[in-house]
Parts: sequence; structure tokens; C-alpha cells
Amino acid sequence: MRNIRLTIAYEGTNYAGWQVQPNRPSIQGTIEAALKSLTGEAIRIHGAGRTDAGVHAAGQVANFTIASSIPPDRFAAALNSELPHDITLRDSSEVPDDFHARYSAVRKQYRYLIDTADMTPPWLRGLVWRVPGRFDEDALAAAAPRLIGTHDFSAFESKSSPDEDSCRTVFDINVTRSPTALGWQSDHQLLSIAMTADGFLYNMVRAIVGTLVQVAQGRGTADDVTRILNSQDRSQAGATAPPQGLSLMWVDYAGADRLQQRPQPREATR
Amino acid sequence: MRNIRLTIAYEGTNYAGWQVQPNRPSIQGTIEAALKSLTGEAIRIHGAGRTDAGVHAAGQVANFTIASSIPPDRFAAALNSELPHDITLRDSSEVPDDFHARYSAVRKQYRYLIDTADMTPPWLRGLVWRVPGRFDEDALAAAAPRLIGTHDFSAFESKSSPDEDSCRTVFDINVTRSPTALGWQSDHQLLSIAMTADGFLYNMVRAIVGTLVQVAQGRGTADDVTRILNSQDRSQAGATAPPQGLSLMWVDYAGADRLQQRPQPREATR
Repeated sequence: MRNIRLTIAYEGTNYAGWQVQPNRPSIQGTIEAALKSLTGEAIRIHGAGRTDAGVHAAGQVANFTIASSIPPDRFAAALNSELPHDITLRDSSEVPDDFHARYSAVRKQYRYLIDTADMTPPWLRGLVWRVPGRFDEDALAAAAPRLIGTHDFSAFESKSSPDEDSCRTVFDINVTRSPTALGWQSDHQLLSIAMTADGFLYNMVRAIVGTLVQVAQGRGTADDVTRILNSQDRSQAGATAPPQGLSLMWVDYAGADRLQQRPQPREATR
Repeated sequence: MRNIRLTIAYEGTNYAGWQVQPNRPSIQGTIEAALKSLTGEAIRIHGAGRTDAGVHAAGQVANFTIASSIPPDRFAAALNSELPHDITLRDSSEVPDDFHARYSAVRKQYRYLIDTADMTPPWLRGLVWRVPGRFDEDALAAAAPRLIGTHDFSAFESKSSPDEDSCRTVFDINVTRSPTALGWQSDHQLLSIAMTADGFLYNMVRAIVGTLVQVAQGRGTADDVTRILNSQDRSQAGATAPPQGLSLMWVDYAGADRLQQRPQPREATR
């Protein structure tokens, strides 16, 4: 048996989310169906992050074990030919036996895109949250660092979370405005909020974005963000931002996904 | 009767093109259906450019005449609530009686987007042409100006064109590489070729892009582009680039779409 790692990009618009669900299309279920079609085996894959309906990924990671003789780096191309256009496997590789896409992760980055224009081009609707009107980006950028560090993020955790420990370490929140070649004009810009942490509670990024947007709209200050964080009370924070602005960008395993050079079995001396 | 102008953005992916076709969804047909639903009247709209299946628009223009009492600037919002998410009316206004979206146009801009990366994010697949491998962007940018000016563009006209005169004036071809906030990483860039002309022959932009990409791939030079142009022979030029990279950006009417201040009827002196 070999343990195979996949790096996966998808547009989540037409899916009920990562996780397999009865009678609804999921990213996991679609990749498992492609694996079955390729190998004839029913194989369960394990994803790093259970993205919700409408959430995208540039670098989701999943792993599965298989007895197939297909070379590990060929799975990506072989499965891509079975997959619909909105799911693309970026690469595949063999990883150590004890690698698990979710439990071996040490850092992840999620990015949230906001369009502050009055109108969003139709082809970007499924990819950004449109927030028209007053938007003080400097106030948002000044408030965001209040969330960096190791904290109990209960105030930004949806109640349905199965997680017990609500403590997470946010390493960085990077707020940038960058042009998109895909706007109305070439100078159309999107606001990007990229958060890097050792893990995220359920809906944590979307609750944080909802709260930071309140600050941008003048309905709160950086001090309010600190107060909300310390309250550990979800009702203090802003509304959960909608799913379509969110993408899982990458997952870092600090080398746990790299196969060591296996020592060659010593030849018996005759 | 009033003559109403619409500015229209759409993602053409799920349409057979601008023009009404039997049994296939079209942009024109979808907007006409929304107009019928709004006003009860079967109204024909006239578009500035007949974009093909899979081609998009940021600023298509159309006009129609109507007896309705709906204020002209309210049509956009009223119709948007009837239209699917991939078509957005950006604005509506009353225009002079003799304005025609197609015949009154004096300049148009089309833009073509190319992704030269090895792999394109799934959410950009319907919006760019992926051209992996060797790509000499400087050679492309150096060849493009050979097409500026007033020329017979027969070499870049698909045979099925109903146009008789193949002479057009290209004012500008602007080749830029710009970052997209929507790539794999924040530094992902797309190549944009924006062409401005007084009019375009059928498939002209796509044939020109196909020819310029040959130059970028080392299968031709700037001098070849001049030679192809002068040949007036379609078989000399490159293949027609695929539709999904193309967008109609704007149409300019040099003021012919602006209603003059109507002189107030002079009051009779009693």
C-alpha cells in the first residue's frame, strides 16, 4: 500500500462543499468517483480542510492509500481526465505512511476576496464578496493585526463546531488591494485578506472577515476587535461573511509530506 | 416611443452567443425575455457587437424602442431582477431617436486574455486562453503594432463573414501583463491584448490573437505579420484563438448616445 498526496484546486460554486453528503455533489465525492473510475476501487480520501458550499481552493490537500501500481506522480493527470472542469489536481506524490492531510498540517492559509465596487462583473460573482458603499480599508488593515497571536477564538467560531479546543495561533493577516485583470477596467482592484494560522475553527475566517468589514464600514474600531476576541462570545462578533469570497490557498506540512530517501536493503553477502 | 440604451456585462460561457438562435440560450434572447416579463411587450433589442458563443462582455451596448412609462434610468435595475446572474445591466438611459447600438458606434475595444502558466485555476478556465510553453511576450508586443492603421483585414476575417468591405482602422493594440488577484498566488499574471478599432470583421480579434501567439511561440516574426496582413489571405494567418479569452470591453459613440437638452416648448402668451 502506498500513501498518495494530492494538491487540489476547485471552484466550489456548484458543490455542497468538500465533504461527501448524501444526494448532493461534493468535491471529495467527485474525486472519489474519479478514483473509482480509474482504479476500480472504492477509496476514501482525507482532505486537509472541510471547505463549505461555495468555498474554493487553490491548494487543498488530500491523501489516500492505494495498492495500485500507477506511479504516484501520474495520479494527477490520470484523474484530471476523469474530473469535471471545476476541479483540477495540481500534482500528486507519494508521502510517508503516517502522513494525514488533516492531522499532519502545521499551517494553512485562507484568502478572502472583497469587491468594494458598486457592481461586480458577472464572471466574478461566485468569487468575491461585494461590499458597496463606505469602506475604510485603512481602518480594516489597522484592526486586523489585533487577531494575530495565540488566542481562544471562540468569538469567531460557529456554534455547530465539533472542535473542543478553541485555541489557535494566527501567524499573519495580510491585507492587500491588488488589481485584477478580470475587472471592468484594467484598474479594477480587489481587496484580499489572507490569513495564515496553525488551524482554523469552523467558519473562523468568515466570522473574522465579517467583523473586519464592520470596522471598514465604521461600525466598530480596532479596539472593538480586541474586545470581541477577549469576550469569547460569538454574538459579539460580526456576521459570517458569505462563502464565495473564501479560498483555501495552501497547506504546509513542514516536511512531513516528503518521502525520506529509503535506505536500500543491504545485499546479503554471499 | 423612447429609444433606450443599455450597457451590458455578461459571462458568455453558458450561451450560444449574443444573437437569438432557435432552441439555444442567447444573451439577446435572455434580455428580450426579461423585457417581455417586465413590460408585457415583445421587444427586439439591437446589440453593438454579435459576440460568439463563450465570448464575454464588460460593456456591450444595445438599444430598443418602447412606449413604456418606466423612467429610462430604471430599466437596468428592473431588468437585473429578472436576469440570471451571468448577465448584468450596468446602466440604462434614453438616447436620441436615431441612435442605433450597432450603426452609431465609432470605436470599440475588445480584450483578449492569455494565461501562459502551465496550469490555469479552474475558476479562470472560461475566461482565458491557456498557452503553456515557450512564450516570447516581447516578440508579440513588437509585432502587434504592425496591425495598427487603416488596412484591408481580409487575412484576419473568417470566411462566413457577411461584411463586404474588409477595410477597418485599428487605432491601438495594447499588450500588457497584469497581475490577477484570482490566480494561484498573488503574483499570478495574465497577458492582455486590448484592441481598439472603428469596427471588427467576423472573428478578426481571434484571428489576430492566434497570429500574434504564433509569433510569441517563435513560429513567425513581426515581418510575417505584415506579410500576412498584406496577403489579404486568411489561410496565411494563424488559427482562430478560442472564444473564452475574448471580451467586448466598451463601445464609443462620440456623443451620438447623448440626449440633447430638448428646447422647452415656448409658452403661448396670453
